Amino acid sequence: MTPYTQLETFLNQENEWLPSLSLDCVIFGFHDHELKVLLLKYRNVDALALPGGFVHKEESIDEAAGRVLRERTGLTDIYLEQFYVFGQKERQNHLFNKTIIEAQGFQLPADHWFIRRYVSVGYYALVDFLDVIPSPDYLSDSIDWYDVQTMPPLLLDHGQIVRKALDTLRTLLEHNPAGFGRRAAPLLPDTFTMADLQRLYETILDQKLLRTNFQRKMLSLKVLERVDKKRTGKAHKAPYLYRFKPWQ
Amino acid sequence: MTPYTQLETFLNQENEWLPSLSLDCVIFGFHDHELKVLLLKYRNVDALALPGGFVHKEESIDEAAGRVLRERTGLTDIYLEQFYVFGQKERQNHLFNKTIIEAQGFQLPADHWFIRRYVSVGYYALVDFLDVIPSPDYLSDSIDWYDVQTMPPLLLDHGQIVRKALDTLRTLLEHNPAGFGRRAAPLLPDTFTMADLQRLYETILDQKLLRTNFQRKMLSLKVLERVDKKRTGKAHKAPYLYRFKPWQ
Repeated sequence: MTPYTQLETFLNQENEWLPSLSLDCVIFGFHDHELKVLLLKYRNVDALALPGGFVHKEESIDEAAGRVLRERTGLTDIYLEQFYVFGQKERQNHLFNKTIIEAQGFQLPADHWFIRRYVSVGYYALVDFLDVIPSPDYLSDSIDWYDVQTMPPLLLDHGQIVRKALDTLRTLLEHNPAGFGRRAAPLLPDTFTMADLQRLYETILDQKLLRTNFQRKMLSLKVLERVDKKRTGKAHKAPYLYRFKPWQ
Repeated sequence: MTPYTQLETFLNQENEWLPSLSLDCVIFGFHDHELKVLLLKYRNVDALALPGGFVHKEESIDEAAGRVLRERTGLTDIYLEQFYVFGQKERQNHLFNKTIIEAQGFQLPADHWFIRRYVSVGYYALVDFLDVIPSPDYLSDSIDWYDVQTMPPLLLDHGQIVRKALDTLRTLLEHNPAGFGRRAAPLLPDTFTMADLQRLYETILDQKLLRTNFQRKMLSLKVLERVDKKRTGKAHKAPYLYRFKPWQ
């Protein structure tokens, strides 16, 4: 099928979807000192957006989030978690949807299902951006990683959705390190040094932390366990390795 | 209007509402050592449920939550916060909705809007249950406070919704006391003793806490500020009073 036919088929599928409800996925990519977010560019539309989609009538919203991510970015086996529902009446998603479709050469009748009001459930995930290779779907020119601090303005309220996801992540990291540790598993090796962990914290919080304070605080939280050093000639100089205690 | 006419009018209002989307409100009531939840009994249905409803097409979901609570319980000026979206395909809300309506003497066609699948956004709030007097709406026989620990099984997945709200509240209280303090304002006097605060924590967590540990932990978090004692003859024997630091 050509992209045009694929889009035409999709636009005729009103009865496949739960009305009013959409999903948007904020995929944070971390590596070394960089925090990025996965954004796509719709064909013939000169602005970036989050990968998003709809919910099948026979599908849970969590299943839908995984499928939407897979179909739109090629990414699989990613643990997505809902973080907020964007339900402002001023979202104006119908104007945004209309723009995308018209850019593909279609005209939609004013009451078309695709340009009605949608309330969007935001999902987020954390991955190592070196571990995954996103690929654009038939509606997109490109899909790529953008630095969170310097990303350009996004379509619709997607900038606000990214900020809310980042707030959620920072609150988790500052107030609930055990909960953060569970979700951050894809970002760290099985065992890691205190410096590895500090780098992750600093990148997500976008601020430098004092090494001694950070170490004292992390140890006092009792969420880490120290792993035996490898027995090498220089073992006494190597930093300690840690892992998050098992999820109970 | 009789309840029958009111319900008939409502059932004809398909075009008023965003399809697929409902709201459920978990109103926790605290006083002294008791934590309760506000539940209603539908007319002629022998089980309890949360107050819930739908979203007008021209209304944000937060506005809808406030309106639903007001219409169904008579409560106003309550700060509601969304905490989770219940979107399992196994929710079976259509069977539940059908039961309620048939109990009022109506038969609905199989494709009626009211008995389709709904994804429900959960909202919660904390109030002092002595401060508010709920009143039932035209669909309900009664609305009342029930002890959270001993409440009977609820209709649909409403028991699960209450547990998830309670989990959210406990996570907040354990990991983010400043965030909890902002939301707990209606439950405490402007200034309170450490014992008042401990009683609130113990009631929500449903466990006893050691007085000295509790005091040390709360003070170490630096979210409280101590208020000058009143100058009375016995002032030196009175406990210190505290308040949560202003929201920044």
